[in-house]
Order: sequence, then structure tokens, then C-alpha cells
Amino acid sequence: MHQTPTAHVIDPGSGHMSAATGRYEKRISDLAGLYEDAAAFEAFAAEDPARIVYAVHEARPLQSSGDLIFGTTWMQPGRIGREFFMTRGHIHATANRPETYYGESGEGLMLMESPEGETQILEVRPRVLVYVPPMWIHRSVNTGGTPLVMSFCYPCDSGQDYGIIERSGGMATRIVADGSGWKAVENAAYRPRSLAEIDAVLATAA
Amino acid sequence: MHQTPTAHVIDPGSGHMSAATGRYEKRISDLAGLYEDAAAFEAFAAEDPARIVYAVHEARPLQSSGDLIFGTTWMQPGRIGREFFMTRGHIHATANRPETYYGESGEGLMLMESPEGETQILEVRPRVLVYVPPMWIHRSVNTGGTPLVMSFCYPCDSGQDYGIIERSGGMATRIVADGSGWKAVENAAYRPRSLAEIDAVLATAA
Repeated sequence: MHQTPTAHVIDPGSGHMSAATGRYEKRISDLAGLYEDAAAFEAFAAEDPARIVYAVHEARPLQSSGDLIFGTTWMQPGRIGREFFMTRGHIHATANRPETYYGESGEGLMLMESPEGETQILEVRPRVLVYVPPMWIHRSVNTGGTPLVMSFCYPCDSGQDYGIIERSGGMATRIVADGSGWKAVENAAYRPRSLAEIDAVLATAA
Repeated sequence: MHQTPTAHVIDPGSGHMSAATGRYEKRISDLAGLYEDAAAFEAFAAEDPARIVYAVHEARPLQSSGDLIFGTTWMQPGRIGREFFMTRGHIHATANRPETYYGESGEGLMLMESPEGETQILEVRPRVLVYVPPMWIHRSVNTGGTPLVMSFCYPCDSGQDYGIIERSGGMATRIVADGSGWKAVENAAYRPRSLAEIDAVLATAA
């Protein structure tokens, strides 16, 4: 009658979550257009197009609203040119839905951008929980030398809009190598959203 | 304009969560009536009524619905008679709201009961995420010899109904010591909810 409680073991090394209801992977060939150095991307993708860049385990509930989706993200370390491996990134389709990310292993950061174009960056490492509030586009970046594993949780009626980043020529900020660390640089291809585009995002709030 | 993203460091030993917006503690004197052995409770409480049994750090968002509350629970190890230390327990006031609990340190369990009186028990230890689905009363029990620390996440419009357990003379099941482990025993004082009481809980769903 009611959904049965479940326990899920998270492996901080592999990102495996037991009793997941779904799993998906993004291969390098799925990520064309994300990186500033198109030639470096082409060379990298040609070498091994099936290479997995990140993988997600998730558990989705029976209820369609008022419930939670949770799971793990596992991201390989690596770079395309000077730019670190990253997820495709999204804003929630219902944009005023938040998300929590909790560091399980490795190190990286959450790159966030408001519809109006403000950038916020927070570092993730084990035992650090990053709260992505309502209305923020977000993308994870692996700035370390080992896999970055995070667990996440978000409302089940959030949805994902992946197109918002593409429509602006990427996010305003890119995360690139800087000595043994990282730095944020401007994305030269970025086109700020128009007022009409911003209003359309804000209007998804529910 | 939008809520600013935040990072929170969780200390698995103390349960401290940085940048929390709230914190509360339950002392032994707050927990009268929970334990089967009233004389053992009185003796224990008389010794040090201010003793903290559990403490919660939490972060609450600005939005009143569609958002998330997250934080940590830290629970001392100990027993009243043969019964392990436990939280007061609750069902969400909007009963079809779920909650996730993630083991940070120590060992214990999540004791869950449906309005209809079904019991479910899941063990928690580090790296184990317990999903409490909509409609389950839930209480944490520290069955180990060290503090039990868990991080949690639930929808911000959940609310808490603590009275549901009291009105039934406790939960149907008690968790007691059994050699070096634990076992579940029947709570002799338990009064199953009437159909009208069950319907009233189900009617809170939104």
C-alpha cells in the first residue's frame, strides 16, 4: 500500500549505490560542444569515443510530487585542453527546485549561475555538502586527480532543462587548470540571456 | 534576489554542520514517557536531567514549499534499562513527505511504522542511506557504543507530528539489547490506531 522503506549502500570509490532504480552514463561522444578547445575535444573523442566521463546511480520514488530523488554521481578526472572534465549541467525545469550535493570522495566544485548571469563557485570535497538553492543553473567540475563522487538529493518534481546552457553558448565561467589548482575564466562564447529569456525561466516556478 | 548557494562541512564525530541556520538539543528530561522501564528512566533522569541525548543541526531555506531542509542528527549511545537511546520520532504533518538519512558515524537503525501498524526496521551505518518513504512514522535508535551521526534531507513543507506516537502508547516495536546486539520486541503498551485515526493521517497528504 505504501512504498516500502529501502537502504542503499554508497561506495565512495566507484560511486555505486545499491538498490538504485536507474543508472545512466555520459560518454565523451555525448559531450560535444561543452569545451572551449574544439580541436582538443575532437582529438580526445576520436581516441576513445566510448570513454565514460561520468555515471549516475539514482533512486526514483513512486510519488510524482512532494517526494525525493536521490543518488550518486561519479566523474572521471581529466581535461580537454586546459579545461577540467565537467557534467553537462542543468537548471531544474521547475526552476525553483533546489538540490544538495555531498562529497563522498575526490575534489571538485559546483559551478552555479543565476538566470541573470551571476556566477557562484563552491568547492566540494568529502564531508562537504553544497546546497544549490532554487533558480541556479549548476554543473559539477572534477578539479582533482581522482574520481569525484558525490551523493545528491532533489525534489522529485524538479525536472531538468539541459538546453539553458547550450542556448547561452555555455556558462559564463569556465574552470581551467592553473598550476596544480584551478581558476575561473570568462567564457568568450557566452551570450547573456535576454530579459524575455530570464522571465521565461522565472515563470517556471511552482 | 535568489538565495545564495552555501557549503556546509559535516563533522562525523560531533555531528556539527557549519553554516547551519538552526540547532536544537533534546535532554533526558525532555524524553519522559518514551521508555518501557519508567523506574529506570526516573533514576537515570534524576542523576543528570540536563544530559543531552541527541542534537540536531539544520539549514532551512527561504522558500516555504518545493525546497529542502537538511542537517545532521547526533545521538549519544546509551540505554534506559534494556532499551536503547532513541529519538522522539515523528510522522510528517503532511504525511506523504519522505526523508533520507545517511550514516556518517556509529551504528543504529531506523524504526518505521505505517499508520496501519506495519513495522519496518533498517540498519544505518556509515555510507548507508535509508529512504523513509511517504507515510511512515520514523524514529532513530542508537544500537552502538559510540555516537550515531546521520545527515538528513526532507521537503521543506513536511512539518512534524510528534503526537502520533504518544497517542498510540508508543510505537508497536521496541528495540532492546540482546547480548552484544539488538532485537525487536513488542511494545505491550501499544494501542493500534483506529480506522478514523488512520484516515485522518492519510488525509494530510498534499
